[in-house]
Amino acid sequence: MTLDEVRDLARRVLAGAGLSADHAAAVAETLVAGERDGCGSHGVYRLLVATRTIATGRVSTDAVPVVREPAQALVRVDGGGGFAQLAFERGKPLLIEKAKAFGIAALALNNVVHFAALWPEVEALTDAGLVALAFTPSHAWVAPAGGTEPVFGTNPIAFGWPRPGRDPFVFDFATSAVARGEIELHRRAGKPVPDDWGYDAEGRSTTDPAEVLAGAMRTFGGHKGSALAAMVELIAGPLIGDRTSRESIAADEGAGASPLGGELILAIDPAGFLGASVAEHLSRAEAMFAAIEGQGARLPGARRYAARRRSLAEGVQVPAALHADLMALTTGDA
Amino acid sequence: MTLDEVRDLARRVLAGAGLSADHAAAVAETLVAGERDGCGSHGVYRLLVATRTIATGRVSTDAVPVVREPAQALVRVDGGGGFAQLAFERGKPLLIEKAKAFGIAALALNNVVHFAALWPEVEALTDAGLVALAFTPSHAWVAPAGGTEPVFGTNPIAFGWPRPGRDPFVFDFATSAVARGEIELHRRAGKPVPDDWGYDAEGRSTTDPAEVLAGAMRTFGGHKGSALAAMVELIAGPLIGDRTSRESIAADEGAGASPLGGELILAIDPAGFLGASVAEHLSRAEAMFAAIEGQGARLPGARRYAARRRSLAEGVQVPAALHADLMALTTGDA
Repeated sequence: MTLDEVRDLARRVLAGAGLSADHAAAVAETLVAGERDGCGSHGVYRLLVATRTIATGRVSTDAVPVVREPAQALVRVDGGGGFAQLAFERGKPLLIEKAKAFGIAALALNNVVHFAALWPEVEALTDAGLVALAFTPSHAWVAPAGGTEPVFGTNPIAFGWPRPGRDPFVFDFATSAVARGEIELHRRAGKPVPDDWGYDAEGRSTTDPAEVLAGAMRTFGGHKGSALAAMVELIAGPLIGDRTSRESIAADEGAGASPLGGELILAIDPAGFLGASVAEHLSRAEAMFAAIEGQGARLPGARRYAARRRSLAEGVQVPAALHADLMALTTGDA
Repeated sequence: MTLDEVRDLARRVLAGAGLSADHAAAVAETLVAGERDGCGSHGVYRLLVATRTIATGRVSTDAVPVVREPAQALVRVDGGGGFAQLAFERGKPLLIEKAKAFGIAALALNNVVHFAALWPEVEALTDAGLVALAFTPSHAWVAPAGGTEPVFGTNPIAFGWPRPGRDPFVFDFATSAVARGEIELHRRAGKPVPDDWGYDAEGRSTTDPAEVLAGAMRTFGGHKGSALAAMVELIAGPLIGDRTSRESIAADEGAGASPLGGELILAIDPAGFLGASVAEHLSRAEAMFAAIEGQGARLPGARRYAARRRSLAEGVQVPAALHADLMALTTGDA
C-alpha cells in the first residue's frame, strides 16, 4: 500500500468507529507515521486498539480541544476526553511561539486518551528547530523498585534534538522493562518471558506472561528507571492537574480502555541560549553523533529512518489478515 | 564533629588551597550537605578531589560569576572557570524569579568545574516550591550502547519535587552503570568488578577495575540509559554553548582535573499550571508516595534524610586518618 492509501484506510476505520473528521485525521497521521517508520505495533495495527477504546464509550469522539495560557510560558490544552493527537496539534503552534519568545515553554495536555507513541510529537517540534521532551503516565501496571505492586504506568519519555539537514535525534522509550505489548505478544504466542520482566499478583518473579499482566511489570534499569517512572507520574500528573496512573486505571473500572490523563511537553529554543551561534554549537552535537556511529553503534531512531526511506519509496506491506480486519471495520461489519 | 565544625574545616581546607572566600563558602556548603546526609564519597572526603583539581591550576580560584538573561525565561551564568557552586548560587535567585513569573525557566551554568552531586541544587529549588531538573556532562568515560569506546560522561540527572511539610522527593543518579568512584574503590581494594560495568581499552568485557578505568564504562539500563546519557550531553553541552564530555576530557590533556563545562537546570512552578489548586494536586502526589512506601519500597533520598536527622542531632563521624589529612591541608603541609 502507498502511504496515502494507508492514511485513507486509517481515516475510514476511525470515521467508521465514530470519530469526528478532525480527530480521525489527527489520529490517522500518527498511525501512518508509525507504519511508515516500520513500528509494526504503532502502525495501523493500533487501529484495533483505538476502535476497542472507542467501543468502550470512554473516549469522546468529537471533543473540541480548548487552548489556554495559564502563565506566560505555559500552554494548557483541555482535550475534553478525546484522543491526545488533536489536542497536541491544537496546542503546538502556541508552544512553538512561546518557546521562541521566552527561550523555553511547556505544554500540558489534559484529559486526553493515550494509545500511541510520543516520538511523532517531539519530532514535530524538532521540525520547528526546537529541542523537545515529552512525558505521559498510563495505567498503573509497573511496580516501583523494591516493591512488587503496580504504582506506575509504562511512563514513556521522549526526546528530540534538531539536526539541520538530517533526520532529528529522537528517542522514545517506556520506563518499564519492556513495552506492555511485548508481554501480550508473548502471551498470545504461548512463550515464557524472562523472569526479570515482572511479578505475579502475589509478588513472586514469574516467567508466565499472563501472570505478569495480572501482576506487575518491572521498571527498566532498577532503582534509576523506577525514579524516572516516578518523575513522569509527578510532572505529567499532579504538576499539570491530571491523573496519576493509579487514578487512571481506577477510573477505567476494568473497561480495558486506553489511559485517560495528561501529558507534559517541554520545548527549548537553541537560539535562546545561543543567539547567532546556533550553527556553531549544533556542530558540536554532530561531532558526538559521529563518535557514536563511528564505532558502529546506532543512534536511536536510525532503524525508523531507514524504514521511512523505504516506505516513502516503495510503500508498506500490511498483512492480508490485518487488512481484511481493518476493511471490515470501515463498513461496520466487525 | 558538629556540622559547624565540618563547615569550618572545609572552609579552611579550601581557603588554604587558595580558593576565594566566596568560593570556599559555596563549595563547603555542598560538602557539608553530603557529609550530613551520609554520602561518604560526596562529603568532606571530596575536599581531596577539590584540592587536587585546584593544584592542577585548571580551576579559577577567584572567578566572579557573571549573570546574564539571554531570553525572558532563561538565565545564563558564566562561571569563569571556577567551581559550579558559586555560579549556581548567583544564578538561583533569578531562576526562581523567572520560573514564578513565566511558569517555567531554565538556568545554564557555563564554564564551571564540577566535582560534586547535583541534588543540593535541585533540593534548593524545591525549598522555593519549584519542581527542578538538573543535568551535566563530565569527562568522556562511558561507551554508548552498541559500542565500547568512551563518548559520554557519567552524566547525572537530578530531579526534585517539593513536598510541603516533608523532605522533598529528590533523586540524583549517574547515567553510567555505576559511579566512577565505585570502580576506583574496587581498584584500591584489589577487588574485581562485575563484567557488565565496562570494557577494557580493546573493547572486551573485563572484571579488572583498572582496565575499565582505562577503557570505557557502560551506561545503566542498556540502550535506554545510553539514550539518556546522549540527551544530557546535548542539552547541557551544545544547547547551552558548552563542552561535550569528549571536549572536556580533551581539554584536560591528562591533567586529571575535574570536568570543566556546563550544567542545565530547569525549574517549573506548580502554581503556573495549577493556580490556586496547588495543594489539592500535590496531595495526589502524596497518594502515590504512600502507595510506594506502603508496599515496603523506599523513596529515593530516604536514606539521606534519615542520615540527615541523625547528623543534625548527633553530629557526624569523620575517620581519624581523613581528618588528619584534611587538617594537614589547612596548614599547607600536604
